[in-house]
Amino acid sequence: MIRTPEAFREKGIEVKVGHKVMALDPAAGRVLVRDRESRQEKWEPYDQLLLATGAVPFCPEVPGSDAAGIFGVSSLQSGMVIQRFLETESPRQAVVVGGGYIGLEMAEALIRRGVSVTLIDKAPQVMATLDTDMAALVANTLTDLGVNLRLGEGLKEFIIRDGRVAAVVSDAGEYPADLVVLGLGVRPNSALARDAGISLGVKGAIKVNGRLQTETAGIWAAGDCAESFHLVTRKPIFVALGTVANRHGRVAGVNLGGGYATFPGVVGTAVTKICKLEVARTGLQEREIDGLGLEYAAAVIKSRTRAGYYPGAAPITVKVMAEKGSGRLLGGQIVGGEGSAKRIDILAVALHAGMTVAEVIDLDLSYAPPFSPVWDPVAVAAREAAKLV
Amino acid sequence: MIRTPEAFREKGIEVKVGHKVMALDPAAGRVLVRDRESRQEKWEPYDQLLLATGAVPFCPEVPGSDAAGIFGVSSLQSGMVIQRFLETESPRQAVVVGGGYIGLEMAEALIRRGVSVTLIDKAPQVMATLDTDMAALVANTLTDLGVNLRLGEGLKEFIIRDGRVAAVVSDAGEYPADLVVLGLGVRPNSALARDAGISLGVKGAIKVNGRLQTETAGIWAAGDCAESFHLVTRKPIFVALGTVANRHGRVAGVNLGGGYATFPGVVGTAVTKICKLEVARTGLQEREIDGLGLEYAAAVIKSRTRAGYYPGAAPITVKVMAEKGSGRLLGGQIVGGEGSAKRIDILAVALHAGMTVAEVIDLDLSYAPPFSPVWDPVAVAAREAAKLV
Repeated sequence: MIRTPEAFREKGIEVKVGHKVMALDPAAGRVLVRDRESRQEKWEPYDQLLLATGAVPFCPEVPGSDAAGIFGVSSLQSGMVIQRFLETESPRQAVVVGGGYIGLEMAEALIRRGVSVTLIDKAPQVMATLDTDMAALVANTLTDLGVNLRLGEGLKEFIIRDGRVAAVVSDAGEYPADLVVLGLGVRPNSALARDAGISLGVKGAIKVNGRLQTETAGIWAAGDCAESFHLVTRKPIFVALGTVANRHGRVAGVNLGGGYATFPGVVGTAVTKICKLEVARTGLQEREIDGLGLEYAAAVIKSRTRAGYYPGAAPITVKVMAEKGSGRLLGGQIVGGEGSAKRIDILAVALHAGMTVAEVIDLDLSYAPPFSPVWDPVAVAAREAAKLV
Repeated sequence: MIRTPEAFREKGIEVKVGHKVMALDPAAGRVLVRDRESRQEKWEPYDQLLLATGAVPFCPEVPGSDAAGIFGVSSLQSGMVIQRFLETESPRQAVVVGGGYIGLEMAEALIRRGVSVTLIDKAPQVMATLDTDMAALVANTLTDLGVNLRLGEGLKEFIIRDGRVAAVVSDAGEYPADLVVLGLGVRPNSALARDAGISLGVKGAIKVNGRLQTETAGIWAAGDCAESFHLVTRKPIFVALGTVANRHGRVAGVNLGGGYATFPGVVGTAVTKICKLEVARTGLQEREIDGLGLEYAAAVIKSRTRAGYYPGAAPITVKVMAEKGSGRLLGGQIVGGEGSAKRIDILAVALHAGMTVAEVIDLDLSYAPPFSPVWDPVAVAAREAAKLV
């Protein structure tokens, strides 16, 4: 799916590689484009403009961050740079800074290559998008894998020797390192839009309406640089995920092409895999529900991914949150073995539909021994939550 | 989960094994119970009565059906009987009659035990619950496995020698067999209810309302003996599946216990596994939609179960049907490798919610390379269907 400029040209689309937009002039309907090779700049006119500038990795403001051996991971290219470093420099001790999706996936990848790994995160848990109890299951797996987990420790400084990283200092300890991977999340790359006077919204993401129009005429925004609407909180949210960006792209494309499409919004679905552990979440976590001032009940159940007697049945833990009184489903989290993660889609669709947990109990979900117990674990969790609301 | 009478007794529930209900007398509120050991019969009174008599396998009215070597499969017990026959008689040639879930699963099991298998079905396809195009994918897998598939051939007679089955005669051929497995489906076991004057409904299943009350005061019915309500056709349907029976049981139990619960209905979800092939369906198939007189569009797409570059990505075919004009989702079918089947739950929940295919496109479904391409195959199929309605 990585297409060349030639492939686009065949469809009548001109792709200019090596050209960077330096500024926007919405009043005149033009953009200032620099040819990186010739270094020449030129204003080019537009009728409709799509901003799809993506996100940029969060860089810590810590001395020595630009030393050799310290890497961010934000693109295929940055992954290849780390791979080459592993091959040529054979690092032995790595520190991963940040316990989110990227940090955890990198920790696993490095351990599997024989590098010893310390992971530090200033939060008291890994995966801030999970509740503390569910995140603890993930932390156990990391520890079992051999990761030296240092939670509740903020990054303080890097110790550099001869221009290379030699150690990472947290506010609680010092960890020798000949490789550091930063997984501190991303922020929307919206500087170009901001400088042109285009309204920004939550966390600096470009403010858009349901058609992905900005507040400036003729300018649209899609992907990691733009806001999304959260269907459960009914508020804008910044989500930097490939799924959302792809769906944004379809909607913006239809609209720019003169059609009509809207992006209904997100419910906060995300999944990942750490070793054999599948991890999934959707909707609101406890912290988010508290933030809205809602009263809720949470149920956590343990079950199996398949019929108990079927080979390969693995443990699965499902957590479901529902609003007190109404019973409205608010969110869910799943941690378990093979076959766990994609079950989150049941709760994601139920959130889109605004279902109650009582309605989730009686969903006509699929069952056969290789795929599920006769009561799907998600329905079991909903059943328990329904007793508490 | 197989509980003993003692386990029930501890909870204050008396379980009488070896007792059979011979007749119902709803007017007097009593049942005639026979003790199978002593052969004594006794009328026992009830306030509330639950009929959970299940289903009985469909038996063909064909000469010789009761010969040795001919088996139905309807319970754990009947499976054990076949297993013992395989161990003691070492059959070499089996004929499976019926190409539904049970027939296909038995064909696979027998082939894996080294028995050669011929499967006959009077329909021109296997799995009548799938559309012809999707069923063809399943048939290919059976043929690859070595099953001699004889479709469009009705069962005519059994050839018996010395009280044992020797061959199966269809209306097109004769197949030697020292083992015959019947997989002709089930019918509701509703004779007791019928004889007591309780109203029966579709296919002879006991007629019930949303609380699973029969039309006779004080009598309830649940499981394979009772009707369900189909949320897409808005009509009663007979579904003999463990999931539905379990959900019936919960609702009937709450109501019998003096509480209040309703069974919202089914959307027609079912899954199975044939070799490595996962097969799933929900909602209405083309034949059912035609039967309702609705106009519809069907889209079939091929994708992968995981990101294309991720190890273990398997082919998956998804079919989605939607009503012309409204775009209302009507049904879906999935055939593919590991990770395919449970995706049907996305469409099942969407059917419960009455979603359109346009709404399915933008569902916030989970994505990570080990679990899905960035556009879930189900969303891709919905996207194609949305173009056609």
